[in-house]
Parts: sequence; C-alpha cells; structure tokens
Amino acid sequence: MSIKIGILGYGNLGRGVECAVKQNDDMELTAVFTRRDPSTVSILTEGVNVYSVNDILSHRDEVDVLIICGGSATDLPEMTPKYAKDFNVIDSFDTHAKIPEHFANVDAAARSGNKVAMISVGWDPGMFSLNRAYANAILPCGKDYTFWGKGVSQGHSDAIRRIDGVADARQYTIPVEAAVEAVRNGSNPELSTREKHTRECFVVAKEGADKEKIEKEIVTMPNYFADYDTTVHFISQEELDRDHKGIPHGGMVIRSGVTGWNNETGHVIEYRLSLESNPEFTSSVLVAYARAAYRMNREGMSGCKTVFDVAPAYLLNVTPEDMRAHML
Amino acid sequence: MSIKIGILGYGNLGRGVECAVKQNDDMELTAVFTRRDPSTVSILTEGVNVYSVNDILSHRDEVDVLIICGGSATDLPEMTPKYAKDFNVIDSFDTHAKIPEHFANVDAAARSGNKVAMISVGWDPGMFSLNRAYANAILPCGKDYTFWGKGVSQGHSDAIRRIDGVADARQYTIPVEAAVEAVRNGSNPELSTREKHTRECFVVAKEGADKEKIEKEIVTMPNYFADYDTTVHFISQEELDRDHKGIPHGGMVIRSGVTGWNNETGHVIEYRLSLESNPEFTSSVLVAYARAAYRMNREGMSGCKTVFDVAPAYLLNVTPEDMRAHML
Repeated sequence: MSIKIGILGYGNLGRGVECAVKQNDDMELTAVFTRRDPSTVSILTEGVNVYSVNDILSHRDEVDVLIICGGSATDLPEMTPKYAKDFNVIDSFDTHAKIPEHFANVDAAARSGNKVAMISVGWDPGMFSLNRAYANAILPCGKDYTFWGKGVSQGHSDAIRRIDGVADARQYTIPVEAAVEAVRNGSNPELSTREKHTRECFVVAKEGADKEKIEKEIVTMPNYFADYDTTVHFISQEELDRDHKGIPHGGMVIRSGVTGWNNETGHVIEYRLSLESNPEFTSSVLVAYARAAYRMNREGMSGCKTVFDVAPAYLLNVTPEDMRAHML
Repeated sequence: MSIKIGILGYGNLGRGVECAVKQNDDMELTAVFTRRDPSTVSILTEGVNVYSVNDILSHRDEVDVLIICGGSATDLPEMTPKYAKDFNVIDSFDTHAKIPEHFANVDAAARSGNKVAMISVGWDPGMFSLNRAYANAILPCGKDYTFWGKGVSQGHSDAIRRIDGVADARQYTIPVEAAVEAVRNGSNPELSTREKHTRECFVVAKEGADKEKIEKEIVTMPNYFADYDTTVHFISQEELDRDHKGIPHGGMVIRSGVTGWNNETGHVIEYRLSLESNPEFTSSVLVAYARAAYRMNREGMSGCKTVFDVAPAYLLNVTPEDMRAHML
C-alpha cells in the first residue's frame, strides 16, 4: 500500500513535489489543494484531482501526509499550525530567526491531533543544518563556514526589480573561491561578508532609464548589496529569458576542526550541493521526509519534528536489512 | 552528571578515543581495559586506571558506554557480542561484507542485556554510509560514487612489507582528479577501478635487495595493486620516518541524480573528508555515537543499532531548543 501524498499550494515547489512523488514507488499523489479556483490549476499527474483548500478537511482520508508548499513570510506561519492537527504535515519554513516560535505553534497543533509535523525541511534549513549538526558532534573543537551559490537569490532579484527604471532582473550569489580554498586548507580564516560572497546582477532596464543611476542604487542598497562586491550587467529581456531562466543554487557547509591530546591534528568536513533547480531539490527533500513522517506517526509518534529528530533509516524505501547490507 | 566512558583496547584508536573524550564536557574517561599486562600500559589521562580485560565485569558500574577499539578481522567479531550483554558498546567494525552477520550476533547479545550496541561507527562505514543514505533518499534516480584518499592504506602498506627484501613501506591511495571532476560535473561516467584511484608506494629496501624485483612484485600483486596504476619510490628509513609518519586519510561520497517530470534536472551532492589522522577522526565519531547510545539506552531502547538508526539530535551535547535556534 503506497503512502498517499497531498500537496497544498501548486507553485514551483508544489510542482517539484509532484515530480518527486513520481520517482518514489512507495508513494502516490492523491490530491492537490489550492487557494486559487481549482478549475484554473492544471497539474501533470493524470487522474488526480485539484480541490479548493476550503474543502481540504473533507479529503482527510485521502491523504497520509500533506506537503505544504507555501512561502515562509506569511503562508507557512499560518498554514502549518492550521493543518497539523488534521494531517501529518511537512513544510520548508526557512526564516531561521523565527523557527522556535513556528516550532512551538506547530508542536501544539500536531500533539492535539496525534500527528507528526516536520518543519524547516529542505537544504538550508535542512541538509545544511544536518551537516552542521553531524560535523559539530564529531569535531566539538572547530569552526563552521557556510557558503551559498553559485545560485539565484529570489529575494535579491526582487529587490532589484523594485528599483525605478528596472523591467526585470536576476541576481546570482557567488562564493569567493579564495575564501573557500582558505577554509578547505584548514587555516580557519576570519571572513567578512565581503570576503565570502560576491553578487552578480543581470538587469533589464526600461526604455530611456538612467542605467548609471540604477547601477548606483543597486550597489549601494543597504542589507542587500552594500556589504558586497557587486557587478551589474545590463542585458536585453531576450538575453535574460534565454540565459537566466533557471533557478540553480547550492553551496557548501564546511567545518574545520582539531583533535588530539593538544588539539594538534586538523580535519576538514565538507558538504556541497550543486543544484540545477532549487525548488525541485527542496521538493525532493520534502518528499523523503514525508515518508519519515508517515512511518514515525504509524509508530505512534506525534508532535513537531525537525531533521534533527529523524533517524536516517526512516527516509528510505529500503528495508533495514538491505540498508545494512548495501549502504553501510 | 557526565557520561562514563570505558575504552577496551589501547592502540591508536583507543588513544584517539581518550583524546576525544577530553574535548567533550559531558563525558569522562573512567577506565581503560587491555589484553596486555595493565602495568605496561601508560595512558594520557591522569587519575584513570588501566585494568586487565579479564576483570572487566567487576568494573561494570564504572562504565556507561564501553568503546571497543579492536581490529575488524578477529577482535571485534568476538569482543562486541561478548560485551554487548553487560555494557552499552560501540565498535568500528568495517568488514562491509560481514556486517549482517556481526549485526545479528551483537543484536542478540544486546537485547538479552537490555543494552544498546552500535556497530560499524566511523567514517566508512559511518559518515560515508550516512551520506549515501541521505543522498539516495533525496535523489532516488541517480548514481553513487565513493573515492578514497589521499590517504594511507594500512592493508596495502602491510602487503608491501610482507615482500621479500622490504624493510618498511607506506602506501597512499589517491583519487584520480579527472574522474572526480567528471562525477562532479554530473556526467555520470562509468569508471573502472584503474580510472578511479592510483596507488603511490614509498618503500625502504633492505640492504642488497633487488629493487627491480620488489617493484615488479608490488605493481603486479593481485587484488592489491594489479588493477591500479601504481608508482613505487625507494627511499631511506630516515625519509620514511620523517615524511610519511602520519596516518592521513579521507575521501568523497558523491551522488549525481536527476529530478523533474522527465528527469531533466541535474543535481550533485558531495560529502568530503580531509583527515590528518584517520584513527583520531574515527575515534571522534565513536565518541559522538557513545553519547547517542547512552541516551537511547536511558530512553529504554536496546539492541544493535547502526548510524542509520540514530536521530542526529542524540549526538550533540546541546539541548533540542538550542539546536533548533542555532543550528537549523
């Protein structure tokens, strides 16, 4: 019997979940819920219905795990606690500073309904967090470094698009290779914001716009660009659509630490992701943790969980015997 | 109250455990057990006694977790099941093909004593296994690659030392950079043994030995060297002692996979270790899992476990609240 997956919210992330479910033999997509008019949402999987989110409770029996594909700013803080009472749920809440508050809200809801709710699943938070945890457990004396990119930052792209005279824009965050190498060599550098990442912007200016002024506004923008070395390229909309359509991302978590009686021995642990599609990879992580949520709930567990609480064996569609024989 | 750690076997690995325990505030070393005459074993930690392994049961109350630091060939298959009934135990059993059998033996013993026993803890098996598991869970459509090195292979060094006319030797396993790059680029190459690793040997010949013959014997040795491109350097004992004293190792686990409705999107997940001391790093992993074994046993769990069965939160001396606030 396969695990019945429901998707709430059908954007890039929801579509990625749909694709990921297709790759997993022990799961099937059973319903998609949307805040839009369901008749306007067309999905890829044949024979699966799209319902209004208003009717979600009447489809409770059709869904073992609901994957909530909303934004962290306003959607998830409201949606995840709301549905955690009636469904096992997964979300990708990524506002790091607000995780404790979100956890508390979701935990209360999930406990009241005896469901498992997993929050902040994805790659950062998610796989990067896991790698920080494992590396800190192994090397308590050490230093953590996280680099992001090369990849598209939606937030920074949006910030550029809000500038007067800008028609469209795409921003890439790029780790500084020299900084990465210094960390890999175990030299434990102290790195400023500017030394860790550069920012590269591809901007489509509106006709007659003052490009010099736009460029100056970008590179001096506080929080977003002022602390970085930023390059701005003006290109046509055709070029942007042709060369910068993808949503690649990735990065590295590196811990450099020491062992030995006098801390004389150096080690470096590195975890690196190179992703052609940020939302599709995130979706694939969500789906693996949906399997874990389903199994953990069947074993009687409930409440809010994060990736730290999930034994890796729950994530795979493989028996424990096979895992030990072939993966260990 | 700190976790009381006992060490069984005081070689490179046991000494590494002793150093790692010192780095962890919530643990203390309480006893070292040896098969040698205890009066001949001098350890680094002041005030801790070395006992004969024959007296180990009389010190049961002094030890929360016993870390068994023996060899996989003959020590661990006998020792781990023997002590798993009376102690929570950890070992680094690394004979991949015999893990299912070892698991069954240890599981029966640990269950009979209501103890937790963790086997095959280290980096391969261990951290590399974990990374294979996570990457397979996230990217079910993909291909795994493992590269080892640059590092010293004790088994290969020993094999050279057994050749007639060889006084001493050190062998390095080195990943082929072009192969690693091809994997990182997502091109999913099929790689032969020879294409993945080269072997470099530093050999001290006995006086008057036939170096040409030694070299030929090395490079044609079946299983160990015949399938690899092998370089042999003859050096003096002084040079070997000066330049090749360390036991560095490491390597990479890479999974290259695809997502998307038609598997059209590529991703690469890489986990890399660069270790100045193989035994000290392995020891540090053992100690982190000792914490987990202690906690899991206190929660009522028993039986044999592997890294796949351990939720990451058990590994760290940090509260769940702090983990969520600072590591997620």
